Amino acid sequence: MIVIKNIVITAGGTSEPIDGVRRISNTSTGSLCAHIYEALSGYLVKNGAAGNEYTVHYVAPSNALKPVESPRLPIVFHTVTDVASTVSALRELAEKTNIDYFIHGMAVSDFTKGYLIEKDTLIDKLTARIEEAVSAGMRGSLRETVASVIDAPDGALRSSRKLSSRSELVLSLVRTPKIIGMIKAWAPDAFLVGFKLLKGVSEDKLLAAATGLADANGCDMVLANDADRIDGKGHFGMLIKGGRVIGRYATKKEIAEGIVENMLSGK
Amino acid sequence: MIVIKNIVITAGGTSEPIDGVRRISNTSTGSLCAHIYEALSGYLVKNGAAGNEYTVHYVAPSNALKPVESPRLPIVFHTVTDVASTVSALRELAEKTNIDYFIHGMAVSDFTKGYLIEKDTLIDKLTARIEEAVSAGMRGSLRETVASVIDAPDGALRSSRKLSSRSELVLSLVRTPKIIGMIKAWAPDAFLVGFKLLKGVSEDKLLAAATGLADANGCDMVLANDADRIDGKGHFGMLIKGGRVIGRYATKKEIAEGIVENMLSGK
Repeated sequence: MIVIKNIVITAGGTSEPIDGVRRISNTSTGSLCAHIYEALSGYLVKNGAAGNEYTVHYVAPSNALKPVESPRLPIVFHTVTDVASTVSALRELAEKTNIDYFIHGMAVSDFTKGYLIEKDTLIDKLTARIEEAVSAGMRGSLRETVASVIDAPDGALRSSRKLSSRSELVLSLVRTPKIIGMIKAWAPDAFLVGFKLLKGVSEDKLLAAATGLADANGCDMVLANDADRIDGKGHFGMLIKGGRVIGRYATKKEIAEGIVENMLSGK
Repeated sequence: MIVIKNIVITAGGTSEPIDGVRRISNTSTGSLCAHIYEALSGYLVKNGAAGNEYTVHYVAPSNALKPVESPRLPIVFHTVTDVASTVSALRELAEKTNIDYFIHGMAVSDFTKGYLIEKDTLIDKLTARIEEAVSAGMRGSLRETVASVIDAPDGALRSSRKLSSRSELVLSLVRTPKIIGMIKAWAPDAFLVGFKLLKGVSEDKLLAAATGLADANGCDMVLANDADRIDGKGHFGMLIKGGRVIGRYATKKEIAEGIVENMLSGK
């Protein structure tokens, strides 16, 4: 009996709702992860896999680029939108499935909406609370007063409808939970590939950041790349394992093949 | 000699940059406008047009759904991203081309980034300025002090890089210029089709809003629709002309055909 190995790939960019029609989105296209699926199926064909040994669970927003499906590598799509829906899709997958490989290529939103408020309302609320504090002789705690309003002002707008405010708006952005930090808790035995994208840094700095990401989250490998070295034609990437560079690539296709070969031979 | 008639279609949703990788985007897919191009080419074929009488200038972001191109109706794509790039693409088009029909179906961002600042920095700046004002005995102008910081705080983040703030963030959103209001100035003779999307309102209210849009911006027709009456299968729309409903439709295809027939026979 063949035991199917499960590969999870997260791809594309999540987006967080501001109101009924607006979102904060990440500009990731999902193209690198589509290449990774294609490199996986290419690798399996080349190595004579029968076509029923692996299943890919592809977790991505609907606007992420779709990989070209191969009959040799079954793919199950899980459509998500924001961080919350991604967390629940992955948690459910980890509960139902024994995940052998986890390639976390998704550009996950770092921030989500805290509140949205009309600018004039925020100014009014701040002024009223400060006047109150000053009148009460509480000048020593002015910062706390200001902070309590900026943290959670009264009069924030409800988010379900399409906003058509005539006023300018103020949007607070709070951090989302880090999915990369949850994966080893969900799937302790999975081989975990992480991604680190920085912009305009030295390769030493990139290596250090990727190693930090691996150490903090139990990644077995990290693909480190630099937004300034990605364009229509090329995509520079370094594959990091155990604090050192094990591969250097110049295109998405090379990166994808490098990840797949090192992952499938490296577990 | 045949004089080519130029039809501008704006489609999809614009998005406004927050930083190097994040944007505020509109969830519009551009599907209705793709149907409009297809209905145009279908109408021209049915009515025996030679195939060189009309050109469509299709102004849309790269992620908008592409229409199925017809050899009978040449299409020129103009790729835009945010409101500013859309305004300049349309202005240039209007300068170079005599626009006969203008179908403004794009979901244009109402808001763009004013500033982005770390929450703690904003609290610090507010506290410092208020303490200064209170010490100077300027309690009467507290609101002005608060407003001047909230309008334009010192210490805002630069937008070009990928932000990796550990702090929470505050984003101010300011209104974008209304493109619909510029079109008749750019192309006074164009037949202008506007769109009004509301959510969960009565048909009377929809008619009034569409008529208001037409009157304020010189639209010859307005397609009014309601987000609560759009789903995977159906798309309710009313076509409004001269303050009254001249067509009612249940699908995107019907809406597209209704717009095209009334537009080409109605100029």
